[in-house]
Amino acid sequence: MSESDRSDGVKRLFADTVRETMDGAAYGAWRTITAPEAVSLVFGFPYPDALPNEAIGDAFDVVLETDHEDALQYAGGDYADAITNTVVEQSRSRGIECTAEEVHLTNGATHAIDTVAQTFLDPDDTIAVEAPSFMGALRLFRNYGVDIEGYELDENGLDVDAFAADLAAREAADEPLPKLLYTVPDFQNPTGVTLSADRRDRLLELAETYDFLIVEDDPYGQLRFDGSTPPPIKSLDDTGRVIRIDTFSKTIAPGIRTGWVVADEAIVRELERINAGGENVLTLGAVARYCEAVDFEAGIDELCAGYRKRRDRMLDALDERMPPGASWSEPEGGFFVWLEFPDGIDAEELLPTAAEEGVTFLPGTYFYHDDAGSNQARLSFSYATPDEIEDGIAALARATHKAMSPVEASDD
Amino acid sequence: MSESDRSDGVKRLFADTVRETMDGAAYGAWRTITAPEAVSLVFGFPYPDALPNEAIGDAFDVVLETDHEDALQYAGGDYADAITNTVVEQSRSRGIECTAEEVHLTNGATHAIDTVAQTFLDPDDTIAVEAPSFMGALRLFRNYGVDIEGYELDENGLDVDAFAADLAAREAADEPLPKLLYTVPDFQNPTGVTLSADRRDRLLELAETYDFLIVEDDPYGQLRFDGSTPPPIKSLDDTGRVIRIDTFSKTIAPGIRTGWVVADEAIVRELERINAGGENVLTLGAVARYCEAVDFEAGIDELCAGYRKRRDRMLDALDERMPPGASWSEPEGGFFVWLEFPDGIDAEELLPTAAEEGVTFLPGTYFYHDDAGSNQARLSFSYATPDEIEDGIAALARATHKAMSPVEASDD
Repeated sequence: MSESDRSDGVKRLFADTVRETMDGAAYGAWRTITAPEAVSLVFGFPYPDALPNEAIGDAFDVVLETDHEDALQYAGGDYADAITNTVVEQSRSRGIECTAEEVHLTNGATHAIDTVAQTFLDPDDTIAVEAPSFMGALRLFRNYGVDIEGYELDENGLDVDAFAADLAAREAADEPLPKLLYTVPDFQNPTGVTLSADRRDRLLELAETYDFLIVEDDPYGQLRFDGSTPPPIKSLDDTGRVIRIDTFSKTIAPGIRTGWVVADEAIVRELERINAGGENVLTLGAVARYCEAVDFEAGIDELCAGYRKRRDRMLDALDERMPPGASWSEPEGGFFVWLEFPDGIDAEELLPTAAEEGVTFLPGTYFYHDDAGSNQARLSFSYATPDEIEDGIAALARATHKAMSPVEASDD
Repeated sequence: MSESDRSDGVKRLFADTVRETMDGAAYGAWRTITAPEAVSLVFGFPYPDALPNEAIGDAFDVVLETDHEDALQYAGGDYADAITNTVVEQSRSRGIECTAEEVHLTNGATHAIDTVAQTFLDPDDTIAVEAPSFMGALRLFRNYGVDIEGYELDENGLDVDAFAADLAAREAADEPLPKLLYTVPDFQNPTGVTLSADRRDRLLELAETYDFLIVEDDPYGQLRFDGSTPPPIKSLDDTGRVIRIDTFSKTIAPGIRTGWVVADEAIVRELERINAGGENVLTLGAVARYCEAVDFEAGIDELCAGYRKRRDRMLDALDERMPPGASWSEPEGGFFVWLEFPDGIDAEELLPTAAEEGVTFLPGTYFYHDDAGSNQARLSFSYATPDEIEDGIAALARATHKAMSPVEASDD
């Protein structure tokens, strides 16, 4: 039997939502954006020196020697507890009062988003996201066959007034209200903007009025270089409607795949039940030992210094080089700048020219639930060196100029 | 607002299947079976010396030093490929021809079962399992709101004739046919029995006739001490109906949480899409390095020697000590012996006496989709030392004797 005959036979057996969503665009197309000679502003990766290889290696050694028998066993010993306590303490230091029973550990933040989605979403539910929003979350939400509504942001984050107006209109028209709002309030991926404190209060009121959950995904909040930190939405929550997702991916390293959820115990209980038991106790042990061994806060200060330098260089280079008509966000932290090209420029079409000039980036379309974003782009300043970032922005400016005056360019 | 008011408010928002299944018995009740002074035959854990702490530590060091920049990054470097190639080679050596595109990596076998369940199961689907069956799989299947039908085993594994007869009867009566059969064909958890070769052929025919998938979960197949190895069901599959699940949990260590699926590319593609991106690249790198550094086959021979000693001691002690009326399986490999107590003995009721006498085990009821198994028990010989196992079985025999003649016991 040929492989294609076979898959027709099996196709009937897929779950309804899998069958209904299986022919969508393949996720990960962005991974094909590679130009080895070009400066990559594509990935939201930490810069290599940000990664504590040696200290993590030491932590694994300690776990494998000290916790000997439990280290490679199924259940782990005391370390699942140890890491949960670390999470509880870190949360408290950010104003989020929680107990160990209100923490659910996951294999990174993306896994946390997926577990929350699986626990709460039925096909044809409506959910609300920022437009643009984190592409990894959009991808997961799509798998659940839900209707995704997008709401615009400005320099103070999600436009909560517009969101409120739409909720009221939906209620009046007897249209479905969202079951949850997914938001990255701090240094949003991809725009870099931060939700203002008053809008956080307002969101909580809306969640109560319209009976939805707020999923607060906050991987970047501790990486602030300027300005003052608004309180995490979860810290303001006295209704149990906020499900907070956090991760060590940016404060320690992505490769350790350790994230968590903070939510009411009744929610955490279901997350624990739904989640599949793939908890990596060895890694959790090593992360716990790492947190004991290092000065975590000093480490974050160092990371902030590294990212700040990169952001400054990117913003300076944009100021200096980009042609009139382009605009961009000015994030006070995090990994990303959001760029709007001058009218008439399509970011995806620009990409080959840009790569030729020496830079790659992610076209804005990747970050929308619909087909918006064609003249926008996410520029990541997290990975390249400051000099490379300056070169990359110069290359981007050259490519933009060429695209603005194609005749002139073809005369070269 | 009190926490209980809150959870009422949020309860409405859970997904339908979560709400419908949330009041079931809490999974993990078995974790409470602890009696520190007693010999534990409860857990399917490898014995401590089976765990290669030092070699795993070395492997992490190599990855963190050699693969420097990629080791703690999101995407990993070449090691995701390296470990996939290891899996392809190991599969081929067991007669399973597959390509890298037919392998899907997971965080252990349980995570693989869950991903398969999420990809194929809709609420109210019917699935078939062995009765008894692996409790971790039953627990996950229950989360999907499916109807679970159980089919008995004998010393040659699943009673395929009875299964076939029921399928025919269901078809004739226009009753739902199963979408999948979940089976542990080698040294089944919990019974220790192995599905005979001819029954494997017959199962494949049934899958084709009645249009269902076979989920072959094979964590123990390489741990054979006697007898000859029947071919993995996947190696006989030319229809693409077999989804094979395997793991390094027993051949390396549970703590590395590395399992995989082998299935047709069309299925793997959907598993990759549905799976949440919690792939632990650092661990995968270490496992790949470990497999390069050690003699894997020699390691399995050593493990078999260790487990064989334990099984032999358990079977000898059962022969010597258990009262008439008790019977048990005689596995040729794996981790488990399945015990049937003399008539009238309830395993769960026996547990406190047994613990007092010096042994704990898992009551049979944990392994059934319905309320069967009350006078059965799973005895794990994987974890305790041979001497402890002998002591444990002696304690079990004393407890059984007491339960058989309660008056005499109370006269003591």
